[in-house]
Amino acid sequence: VKRSETNLRIPGPTSLPPTVREAGARQMINHRGPEFAAMLARITSRVQPFFRTSNEILILTCSGTGGLEAAVVNTLSPGDPVLVVSIGSFGDRLAKIASAYGANVTKLDIEWGRAAEPDDLRRALAGNPGYKAVLLTHNETSTAVENPIAGLAPVIRELAPDALIIVDGVSGLGAVPFDMDGWGLDVVITGSQKSWMVAPGLAMIALSPRAWEASRTATMPRFYFDLAQAREFAAKGQTPWTPALAVLFQLDAAMALIEAEGYDSIIARHRAVAAATRAGLVALGFRLYADQRYASTTVTAAWIPDGLDWKSFNKALLERNLVLAGGQGKVAGQVLRVGHLGDVSLQDIRDAMDVLEEALVQFGREVTPGAGSAAADRASRETLAREPGTGVAKPETATATAVRG
Amino acid sequence: VKRSETNLRIPGPTSLPPTVREAGARQMINHRGPEFAAMLARITSRVQPFFRTSNEILILTCSGTGGLEAAVVNTLSPGDPVLVVSIGSFGDRLAKIASAYGANVTKLDIEWGRAAEPDDLRRALAGNPGYKAVLLTHNETSTAVENPIAGLAPVIRELAPDALIIVDGVSGLGAVPFDMDGWGLDVVITGSQKSWMVAPGLAMIALSPRAWEASRTATMPRFYFDLAQAREFAAKGQTPWTPALAVLFQLDAAMALIEAEGYDSIIARHRAVAAATRAGLVALGFRLYADQRYASTTVTAAWIPDGLDWKSFNKALLERNLVLAGGQGKVAGQVLRVGHLGDVSLQDIRDAMDVLEEALVQFGREVTPGAGSAAADRASRETLAREPGTGVAKPETATATAVRG
Repeated sequence: VKRSETNLRIPGPTSLPPTVREAGARQMINHRGPEFAAMLARITSRVQPFFRTSNEILILTCSGTGGLEAAVVNTLSPGDPVLVVSIGSFGDRLAKIASAYGANVTKLDIEWGRAAEPDDLRRALAGNPGYKAVLLTHNETSTAVENPIAGLAPVIRELAPDALIIVDGVSGLGAVPFDMDGWGLDVVITGSQKSWMVAPGLAMIALSPRAWEASRTATMPRFYFDLAQAREFAAKGQTPWTPALAVLFQLDAAMALIEAEGYDSIIARHRAVAAATRAGLVALGFRLYADQRYASTTVTAAWIPDGLDWKSFNKALLERNLVLAGGQGKVAGQVLRVGHLGDVSLQDIRDAMDVLEEALVQFGREVTPGAGSAAADRASRETLAREPGTGVAKPETATATAVRG
Repeated sequence: VKRSETNLRIPGPTSLPPTVREAGARQMINHRGPEFAAMLARITSRVQPFFRTSNEILILTCSGTGGLEAAVVNTLSPGDPVLVVSIGSFGDRLAKIASAYGANVTKLDIEWGRAAEPDDLRRALAGNPGYKAVLLTHNETSTAVENPIAGLAPVIRELAPDALIIVDGVSGLGAVPFDMDGWGLDVVITGSQKSWMVAPGLAMIALSPRAWEASRTATMPRFYFDLAQAREFAAKGQTPWTPALAVLFQLDAAMALIEAEGYDSIIARHRAVAAATRAGLVALGFRLYADQRYASTTVTAAWIPDGLDWKSFNKALLERNLVLAGGQGKVAGQVLRVGHLGDVSLQDIRDAMDVLEEALVQFGREVTPGAGSAAADRASRETLAREPGTGVAKPETATATAVRG
């Protein structure tokens, strides 16, 4: 079965809803004029609830990685001792950025597939040498694991009270409950091409008053990513440098959709499609990669079955218009990853399972016909039935209401 | 007269042709897949002739300023003595970037409105203390002046043979003849939102073999803007970080238009609209701001007539859908600037002159009716008649062929 539209199931860039796509085709405007200022204010006020913060949201023209760099260089000085908690590629990246700018990095390397748990952090912080910051990943895309930030932040506050808590929220924010202020986080970063259903090119970042205070004395060099400048310009409805306008138009359109769908429904939908993906993959005989107690809500990783060559198998998927991600770093060729964030519906996941089933059959594997999509469907319904306060908790209507498509 | 479409006459972002706009609405693709690799190769091969270089073009997700930062941090080390030639705001910005990263900056400040001439540079380099780089702006947007790089580069080569020549080509490249290799330039940067007729969000940068060599020992910290990484990924048709895909789609569409129009015609068209703008403004009684021997081909600045308040006057222009830029920095409120780069036609300039005329009349100034647009028309025709080898040199057909609109 060759489907006419690509099912883009990578963990970002995610596919764009029609009105978001159309917004990318808008004519340019003066980025120093009143129309731009109004748009910037509208976007940031709508993004804030997903950070759950009263700190202002600054928008930078760069990928998520640029946002991570901004977080580091604005709050730290060369020589500063910092702890980087890494549970995968993106945690490693945080360490590389901090090192590149001269921080004195101690790394807590958690085995791939696991989350950092409070006790891991407790041990790592036991001999706290005066860390200026603890850097962690919220949702680790490479391993499909979500760190329990709510449980980790108090440990940092207790054992390293002076350390800033810097969280890479690039691939989780907007799709899962997050509480920047409640958890006492100091810097949080996200990226437009993830749950926000927008093309890549924008990072969003929020700093706590403590982080702003630190930025005054932080001496890592910065210019393009100077957040004090960004803040000064934001106060007059501008950005210091010419921003990625077309992507901002898309973000503006996406935030209107997001507001219309509602915070709770979006969270519930992501939980449902995540559960659907996991159940579907298991029903098809895949073994999930990550510690399922901390399974990511936005991406799922599974071991590629023994004897199956990823390149050939992936070719079979691509021929059927299903685009998955392979493994990153040390698990390249060994795992596949299914993205389920942003504009994703249960139907997208069911389709993905059907294609996986076809491809498995093509490669001579035994699969119960329809098992994957049926399991996905069931898991989605069960998840939605458990969701409190979403207004979509009734099983019989849940799929239609909360899961688009 | 209220026109239905905005005449966006700022020096970037410039307005987008229809097919470029539409490309911004494309659905996302995998940025690590073959379709992306093919697009990247297509774009860079089409951009290269405008740099006139055999060096590879790297594309970064950032504004032009990010590209300038990349140029500095990849080739220099803290403490390096460098000469920054500044003829306006953007030259000042180069100095700020180099200083922020610890270069030992000597600044040659040329009076605003003037170009740096070979003798200025000769004097500045007389006691060359071993400059590692000379940084200059090609087209200074704040003053509407184009530096004669062809005449300046040989002076640098003679008096500072070991210095890298780093040129901010953001607002000129693509619209005026440029010769990176012929002039012996080491780093050249441009930005998508200028002559390329694309939304902001991408910088393009090329490095000479000398600059790549320097990058190996350059110790300024860098991560997001690490060009060695960018080059490594470019070799496999990728970017290190998720790129601004929608803007790349637009750049791909724009380069197809640019190839169809042709290098010579594009250069001729820009010369014609620049001449038209200058002539039109003069005919309306404006006094041009810059030394006209070095008048920019992409933007024109004029003094705001005595007694005219810029804010009120600009409001009258905006009400008629003409968007100009005001003065930057020390000439804010004193000059206005008309952008004429990218997808700009003689008709756009004539319309701008008509609106300026109406607004001047509204403010009680005496203007000969139609003088501005008539002068613009005449200047365009004369310019095109002088253009050799464009295939559009015959005055009677020139406007129709080379000047769209």
